[in-house]
Amino acid sequence: MYKILREQAYEANLEIKKHNLAIYTWGNSSAFDPDKGVFAIKPSGVEYDLLKPQVMVVIDLDGNIVEGKLKPSSDTKTHQVLYKEFSKLTSENVHAQVRGITHTHSTFAVAWAQAVKSVPVFGTTHADHGTEEIPCTDFMNPEAVKNNYELETGNLIVQTFKKLNLDPTFQQMVLVAGHGPFTWGKSAAESVYNSTVLEEICKMACLTLSINPETKPLPEHIIKKHWFRKHGKDAYYGQ
Amino acid sequence: MYKILREQAYEANLEIKKHNLAIYTWGNSSAFDPDKGVFAIKPSGVEYDLLKPQVMVVIDLDGNIVEGKLKPSSDTKTHQVLYKEFSKLTSENVHAQVRGITHTHSTFAVAWAQAVKSVPVFGTTHADHGTEEIPCTDFMNPEAVKNNYELETGNLIVQTFKKLNLDPTFQQMVLVAGHGPFTWGKSAAESVYNSTVLEEICKMACLTLSINPETKPLPEHIIKKHWFRKHGKDAYYGQ
Amino acid sequence: MYKILREQAYEANLEIKKHNLAIYTWGNSSAFDPDKGVFAIKPSGVEYDLLKPQVMVVIDLDGNIVEGKLKPSSDTKTHQVLYKEFSKLTSENVHAQVRGITHTHSTFAVAWAQAVKSVPVFGTTHADHGTEEIPCTDFMNPEAVKNNYELETGNLIVQTFKKLNLDPTFQQMVLVAGHGPFTWGKSAAESVYNSTVLEEICKMACLTLSINPETKPLPEHIIKKHWFRKHGKDAYYGQ
Amino acid sequence: MYKILREQAYEANLEIKKHNLAIYTWGNSSAFDPDKGVFAIKPSGVEYDLLKPQVMVVIDLDGNIVEGKLKPSSDTKTHQVLYKEFSKLTSENVHAQVRGITHTHSTFAVAWAQAVKSVPVFGTTHADHGTEEIPCTDFMNPEAVKNNYELETGNLIVQTFKKLNLDPTFQQMVLVAGHGPFTWGKSAAESVYNSTVLEEICKMACLTLSINPETKPLPEHIIKKHWFRKHGKDAYYGQ
Repeated sequence: MYKILREQAYEANLEIKKHNLAIYTWGNSSAFDPDKGVFAIKPSGVEYDLLKPQVMVVIDLDGNIVEGKLKPSSDTKTHQVLYKEFSKLTSENVHAQVRGITHTHSTFAVAWAQAVKSVPVFGTTHADHGTEEIPCTDFMNPEAVKNNYELETGNLIVQTFKKLNLDPTFQQMVLVAGHGPFTWGKSAAESVYNSTVLEEICKMACLTLSINPETKPLPEHIIKKHWFRKHGKDAYYGQ
Repeated sequence: MYKILREQAYEANLEIKKHNLAIYTWGNSSAFDPDKGVFAIKPSGVEYDLLKPQVMVVIDLDGNIVEGKLKPSSDTKTHQVLYKEFSKLTSENVHAQVRGITHTHSTFAVAWAQAVKSVPVFGTTHADHGTEEIPCTDFMNPEAVKNNYELETGNLIVQTFKKLNLDPTFQQMVLVAGHGPFTWGKSAAESVYNSTVLEEICKMACLTLSINPETKPLPEHIIKKHWFRKHGKDAYYGQ
Repeated sequence: MYKILREQAYEANLEIKKHNLAIYTWGNSSAFDPDKGVFAIKPSGVEYDLLKPQVMVVIDLDGNIVEGKLKPSSDTKTHQVLYKEFSKLTSENVHAQVRGITHTHSTFAVAWAQAVKSVPVFGTTHADHGTEEIPCTDFMNPEAVKNNYELETGNLIVQTFKKLNLDPTFQQMVLVAGHGPFTWGKSAAESVYNSTVLEEICKMACLTLSINPETKPLPEHIIKKHWFRKHGKDAYYGQ
Repeated sequence: MYKILREQAYEANLEIKKHNLAIYTWGNSSAFDPDKGVFAIKPSGVEYDLLKPQVMVVIDLDGNIVEGKLKPSSDTKTHQVLYKEFSKLTSENVHAQVRGITHTHSTFAVAWAQAVKSVPVFGTTHADHGTEEIPCTDFMNPEAVKNNYELETGNLIVQTFKKLNLDPTFQQMVLVAGHGPFTWGKSAAESVYNSTVLEEICKMACLTLSINPETKPLPEHIIKKHWFRKHGKDAYYGQ
């Protein structure tokens, strides 16, 4: 029934492996259909080489399994919260809606998350994909961990975006403190593209500080220029 | 006679190469059968590409060659001590017994061992696989080195676990000071999985300190949560 | 009509991918014919795997599309300025003319550009390809960014070379502050060769400072020796 | 006539590429026949993919081309000096003679050479292959550079070994300040094996200092133990 959605999720999960964003089973992508209110996600603990579109698990926004025989990713509730909440936060433009989410344990993004540091906008590679620091959340408090850990991970991300006044339409990457990255986009494919980009940005930023620990962020006028080259009505990158 | 055991050891040794945990011949995996009291291990100095199940060497817990024509790995006595001693230390649950051991010279794990530093629990990638620092032993004293080096390497690991009151059922990774990592698990396959994970944890921890030298360990409540997501009776990761 | 030129640009763009100098579509090479006053360049935002010689876009030095149906690289005007200006600056020897340009987002070169640091001549790998620091420009000012960003990027590079009194015949690599590297050469192939070399030089220099933050540049007499082994009338490297 | 010698050199040069010790043409291996007093070496500036045994160039110890149509490696005279001088220095055991030399620009070894730092014996990976720091020469003086650069590079290495009282039979790796590594061995194959090992040792040592800048060398009794596990009459590693 949700054949296309499952295929989108399947293809995105394969990209995690292709771009070396996780070893073994340490990452998951999902694809969301806002009209039907369901998303397809990787089954828990299954290796990427063994995945097929038909083993993707389809979940509704209350967390019920709608289709699929396997247990969904243990991070499913985080995806669920982000789809639910970021649909509200995002701009009214339906084409900008969050329709894909990816979580990985890519090495440099995890290192920044473990260091509990937001990633400064050091260059145009970053600015091409966002005008703000890539935010790092605080550590989750013991009550939230005990309550419903994966759901609260979603809430923690949403609260961080509210606190920093970030719009998830434009800021599509986040680091969860001590854990690792979540990224999203207008499709599952865009969400895993953003995971690959985030890893590269995190590697570049780490090396930049190694070369010059006093590096200042890119001037605001260059950040804005690069963002608007690729986004919005005056974008002129691509075909 | 020990066909299955030799095949398990063979498959694990191939994983060392596949996951780039050693160049040339610098690593070895073994598979243990506690009922028969023997383990199969890589022959010494043979390249991974030339391995076959039938060249694995089968050894008993007194160090006698039970089956096989080649010389076993020079690290054989370390494996022997760990199988003998960790069988005593581990919980009574037979399914938790140490049945596989892997030793590699993977780059980042060796770097931590050379730095003689235990690896702090900086993130959930680590906590998913252990709740404690990955311990680093002290340097072996001259008498022990002279006496029976590889056997004493096993003793050094066992003493380190006793001193730190660590249970090898749960803590399945160790760094030998100035040398490199040993890991184990419920099977040879799990032991080499742990070697791969350890290398990734060591790389992430090294980069974390590079980004923020003042990084504090992950709060205890998050460490515990991640461990129990994947281990024990309430685990809910995987199928 | 510009079949050979398009093929040269096509081959150079494939090298960007082969040498891991950019992920996705983040780099572009062009090939210049000074007699006809046109260059062939990668189309904007097209993945390397989808490129063919016939989709390369041919541009004249006033920025007009002479041949090709796709939009050219968003960095086209930077290439245009460099071909126009560096033809004037280069020595009169026609064989030394700039006939190829490559721009990438290779990781270590970007890190130096983000750190806004010129790369010192730490070793003979560098000296084999240039006798001077690889210069890093200043940040572009807001007026220039607003005016005509990509064209001004070319002007910024040209001004940097004039200010430092550098001859683009000999110094074929530059870092644009906060952005990344541009390289050129006597052919498109040489320009992308220089991008690969630059990335390696930047990686070596970063690691050199990590090992010894006080490292001094290579003595001048060794720099000159290595340069003249490979360049000029007394060169004796190669066949 | 020198078919076997050329094949040995050819195979060793392919290993440079296979183990990523040099990009493009930046490395060369040679194979020496002490009875005939000649060595076969890579031709200058030829890519590894284009090499064949028959294009290797055979040179005598006075630098004359004995066989081969191409120009030999620009580093030929360095090989020539090392074969000539290290034959005198090495032990009388003919099986220990230097019969192969490799020069590369491998990244981490070059970084140490550029930092002009000898590589301390931080661990057993190093001690398995040598009991001493990997020495780094001083910079060559202007007279020597002007005189006969590549020949003087050989002399510089030989002088460094004499000054430090090192025996090239046992210490088979050196860093030339500001340039990069040379390694040798009982065969061309062993020389390029040593280049691969050196790169790994240099990477591990760099990371070790990154984790703990105060790291002390491995205690002498462990260094000696590891060396004699693999070398001399009481060696017990391998078959």
